[in-house]
Amino acid sequence: MNKEDFFIKQFVNDTKLIGDDGAVIGKWVYSNDAFFENVHFKKEWMSLKQIAQKAMLVNISDAIAMNAKPKYALLTVAIPKKYSQKDLKELAKGFKKVAKQFGIEIIGGDTISNIKLDISVTIISKTKKPILRSGIKKEDLLCYTGTLGTSKRDLEKLFSGKKVSKKSKFLKPKLHGEFFYKIAKYVSASMDISDGLFFELERMSKQSKVGFEFFEKIDKEVGCSGEEYELLFSFDKKYKEKIEKLAKKYDVPLTIFAKAIKGKYSCECVNHHFKD
Amino acid sequence: MNKEDFFIKQFVNDTKLIGDDGAVIGKWVYSNDAFFENVHFKKEWMSLKQIAQKAMLVNISDAIAMNAKPKYALLTVAIPKKYSQKDLKELAKGFKKVAKQFGIEIIGGDTISNIKLDISVTIISKTKKPILRSGIKKEDLLCYTGTLGTSKRDLEKLFSGKKVSKKSKFLKPKLHGEFFYKIAKYVSASMDISDGLFFELERMSKQSKVGFEFFEKIDKEVGCSGEEYELLFSFDKKYKEKIEKLAKKYDVPLTIFAKAIKGKYSCECVNHHFKD
Repeated sequence: MNKEDFFIKQFVNDTKLIGDDGAVIGKWVYSNDAFFENVHFKKEWMSLKQIAQKAMLVNISDAIAMNAKPKYALLTVAIPKKYSQKDLKELAKGFKKVAKQFGIEIIGGDTISNIKLDISVTIISKTKKPILRSGIKKEDLLCYTGTLGTSKRDLEKLFSGKKVSKKSKFLKPKLHGEFFYKIAKYVSASMDISDGLFFELERMSKQSKVGFEFFEKIDKEVGCSGEEYELLFSFDKKYKEKIEKLAKKYDVPLTIFAKAIKGKYSCECVNHHFKD
Repeated sequence: MNKEDFFIKQFVNDTKLIGDDGAVIGKWVYSNDAFFENVHFKKEWMSLKQIAQKAMLVNISDAIAMNAKPKYALLTVAIPKKYSQKDLKELAKGFKKVAKQFGIEIIGGDTISNIKLDISVTIISKTKKPILRSGIKKEDLLCYTGTLGTSKRDLEKLFSGKKVSKKSKFLKPKLHGEFFYKIAKYVSASMDISDGLFFELERMSKQSKVGFEFFEKIDKEVGCSGEEYELLFSFDKKYKEKIEKLAKKYDVPLTIFAKAIKGKYSCECVNHHFKD
């Protein structure tokens, strides 16, 4: 077991709320994600504005995957001493731009001085019908949005000193909130793809107690690509047409790749965040 | 203006919720504090359990100061790769011990690998009557709980390589929730003392638009001592006896040191977190 899972395991017996993209309490959903320098990004890869934007977007992605609308945010921002006022303004701009775009009010947090730029965001969202990872029924179809694989490719480019397109999903995740809120009533389980499709499927398999029968082989370049922030979800096959129609309407590529069966699924990708 | 304040200033025009120990939304209060290695503590000063405990307590202190009861917590925990499973267990123990003591459910968060141990905690609390920093009326009396100055002294000891008592408030803040919830109905404004009495008084002066007339000179060793996590609050003098009686009952030392007057108060301590 990797250290991340080992640490989280210390807490799961005391609560039923750990194990989804967010914790549901009444109509509120709470999600929290770190975005740390030299862990999730390197300074030379992105502008300060892009960094703040992505820190927000990866958290909003969790809210969307729970069928929740982000309302408020708390920011922990640890900032290097050498940052100028111009730097701080750029950083603030990134947070504010995304907040405005999604109708989020930034209500507080903590700002400290640190050796590197480390951000942690808590998003408070509202939902009428939270969608969990545990809702997959046998025979449900599994699908993901968008195109997988580009984030891995772009990350490799960045690591080897090359540039990537400004439109790269690695720099700016492309969320599909509008589409997903519309289809939410047909969805049995969902989550966002932050650690790679295969990795998330293992999590869903555990939570929903099902295995998967793949319709076609999915390449590791696609299935192990993390930081995609696409949606992974399941639905009863009777809703297939309705969902496909709405995907078309909102211009969201959809790949139906498996159905849920009796069994268990294990991923063979390497966890890039926390190697043993 | 220091960088911390400059950064926060970028956000205050977009919300009315920034500027207190927590943000109030309906009956919920959200507070968030970072607890970072080499910023708030050094590894050699405290055990992992003590570190986790303090990370929780400084956040719970915010909730209490708002007259809110902590209910849920989200933890961002960035952990060095070299930490053993035993280390992780110790760390988890600290979080869980405080959570249990205060009836808090740890509902989620994020765990990542990092070069040092950096913690950020979001506490979700419930209140019927939040107490803000802005409620001081002219002629109100100002007071603080406990003894101030020991945290500064202990911090200096630790910096010079000396040991401090296991009971040091710097290692384990002593909160006065039980007492404060009882007197809350008499309190006009409150906050906790995290950056030092004088520093917090400046914040209260700004929020409440009052100055202070001190009854006696307060030494800098006392007034500039941060990390005290004592309560600073104000009340109408007609409640003085009631409050003093309850302080005695709960064995909480109380120092009434000033009254609110027309004017403005500025602190002359150095902000230790974020020097320009």
